[in-house]
Amino acid sequence: MSSPTPLIVVGSVAIDSIRTPFGARERSLGGAALHFSVSASFFTEVSVVAVVGDDFTDEDEAVFHERRVNTENLQRISGGKTFRWVGEYGFDLNTARTLDTQLNVFADFQPALSETAKKSPFLFLANIQPSLQRKVREQVDARFVAMDTMNYWIEQTRDELLKTIGVVDALIINDAEVRELAGEPNLIRAARKILTLGPQIIVVKRGEYGAAYFTRDSYFATPAFPLESVFDPTGAGDSFAGGFMGYLAQADKIDETTMRRSVIYGSVMASYNVEEFSCDRLRRLRPEEIRQRFHRFKEFTHFEI
Amino acid sequence: MSSPTPLIVVGSVAIDSIRTPFGARERSLGGAALHFSVSASFFTEVSVVAVVGDDFTDEDEAVFHERRVNTENLQRISGGKTFRWVGEYGFDLNTARTLDTQLNVFADFQPALSETAKKSPFLFLANIQPSLQRKVREQVDARFVAMDTMNYWIEQTRDELLKTIGVVDALIINDAEVRELAGEPNLIRAARKILTLGPQIIVVKRGEYGAAYFTRDSYFATPAFPLESVFDPTGAGDSFAGGFMGYLAQADKIDETTMRRSVIYGSVMASYNVEEFSCDRLRRLRPEEIRQRFHRFKEFTHFEI
Repeated sequence: MSSPTPLIVVGSVAIDSIRTPFGARERSLGGAALHFSVSASFFTEVSVVAVVGDDFTDEDEAVFHERRVNTENLQRISGGKTFRWVGEYGFDLNTARTLDTQLNVFADFQPALSETAKKSPFLFLANIQPSLQRKVREQVDARFVAMDTMNYWIEQTRDELLKTIGVVDALIINDAEVRELAGEPNLIRAARKILTLGPQIIVVKRGEYGAAYFTRDSYFATPAFPLESVFDPTGAGDSFAGGFMGYLAQADKIDETTMRRSVIYGSVMASYNVEEFSCDRLRRLRPEEIRQRFHRFKEFTHFEI
Repeated sequence: MSSPTPLIVVGSVAIDSIRTPFGARERSLGGAALHFSVSASFFTEVSVVAVVGDDFTDEDEAVFHERRVNTENLQRISGGKTFRWVGEYGFDLNTARTLDTQLNVFADFQPALSETAKKSPFLFLANIQPSLQRKVREQVDARFVAMDTMNYWIEQTRDELLKTIGVVDALIINDAEVRELAGEPNLIRAARKILTLGPQIIVVKRGEYGAAYFTRDSYFATPAFPLESVFDPTGAGDSFAGGFMGYLAQADKIDETTMRRSVIYGSVMASYNVEEFSCDRLRRLRPEEIRQRFHRFKEFTHFEI
């Protein structure tokens, strides 16, 4: 039997239609698992657990293969249609407006994990139905499990969501969502409250304002990379999570020093992701560009005592 | 003749009425020059150029004297009423809603500077009418001049404001305001645009998201101090500016290392300011508390390469 993949992700692979103030694309490859796995692939081998339809072409699937993402857990439903999301952004680019969502093959998605995948030490549960996240979590004997979620699940399936949050090590979540989940407008208090529900780590994604990292004993925060042009924010949070988990799986350590670096690598990957539609920028990213931007983070946040 | 005061500030001294989700105060000492000077007084000697009415009592004025703020340029108009601001904050605490503004003695304010004040090396023009800011600026042969402004002047007296911006070294301004001033939704581009109008430095105050510092050649950013309870955000920006300019005047250097430290000291002072109404927290702040929080900033923003 082959050795376990270091990192596994379950979530959506989608065909998006996106309009931003700078352009529009009718058929933009997306979905949380896609942005996550392409991002993480720069750090470690990653396997994607997801479902697509016939309309997801071989050319589309090349996005995985060219980054050596393991697709043995990617189901293709014959006669089915891939998950579709239609959205647009205004000038501030901070919030997407969803115009249409078609679950398609995703509606009946039952994640089936290979034996190799079940032994992965690092697992990321991207934003899907919380009960589905838990089903995957229960199949994988991982050393470190992180998850994302969204306002829809917080509002519609709160009890299910809390159960899932209770069985993960880390929650990687948006600023507005952690406040909504905790019912607490102050971010610091909101994060502290969620830390009592199970996870030892909360990572808060703050978009153009950066990211923050909470444990019971420590706090770390970083501003975002100063981008002069954000072209398409779709997948920013997922590429952040991909960089975070990818670096962690590569380092194979979960201490504070590694975690802080992971937050920075997550921020680096998100900053590249938003420069173009889909994963276009990540697909031609060079490893030295990641190192360069990592060092830039050090440079622009450093001050002398 | 006595030696020049290291730092001088012109701006409002006010009696505010404030309502937050956590309480209300009918008679809260405020105004930009008050928050600024109390904050700056922890670093250097500061002189306040402002005007008050009879209703500003000796007890009120103690806020300056107990911090050794120089009041020789504080005018008291007999029979006049002090500037009044009535405002409230919602749960997110990010934006104040103004319920009432009474200019009172501030309507006819003509700043009169002592000969000592005119020789101050550091000058801060707090948020007042841009033509008035320029009148003060022209009287002071300062080495380093910074200014603040607000949306009202950006919208109502844009040409006057641009003239004033053209004769200062630094603009210390809110996130939303720098974007509005530049007519540019991207913060980085907005700041770069303002840098072509005169100032060599733009410091952007981002409230709970921290602060950013721009010059033509450098960029620095910091998250805010993680506060579990923000009680009253009034004066946060002015106490930030006070810490920034106070530390700068004390160091008497305007190099990059000093500037970055100034941004952190500004953030420290703002974080204390918002913990209670008015300057209540700053009035009993101890210098070692400033040092502690400065070191905390280092701790929670540090990561290893």
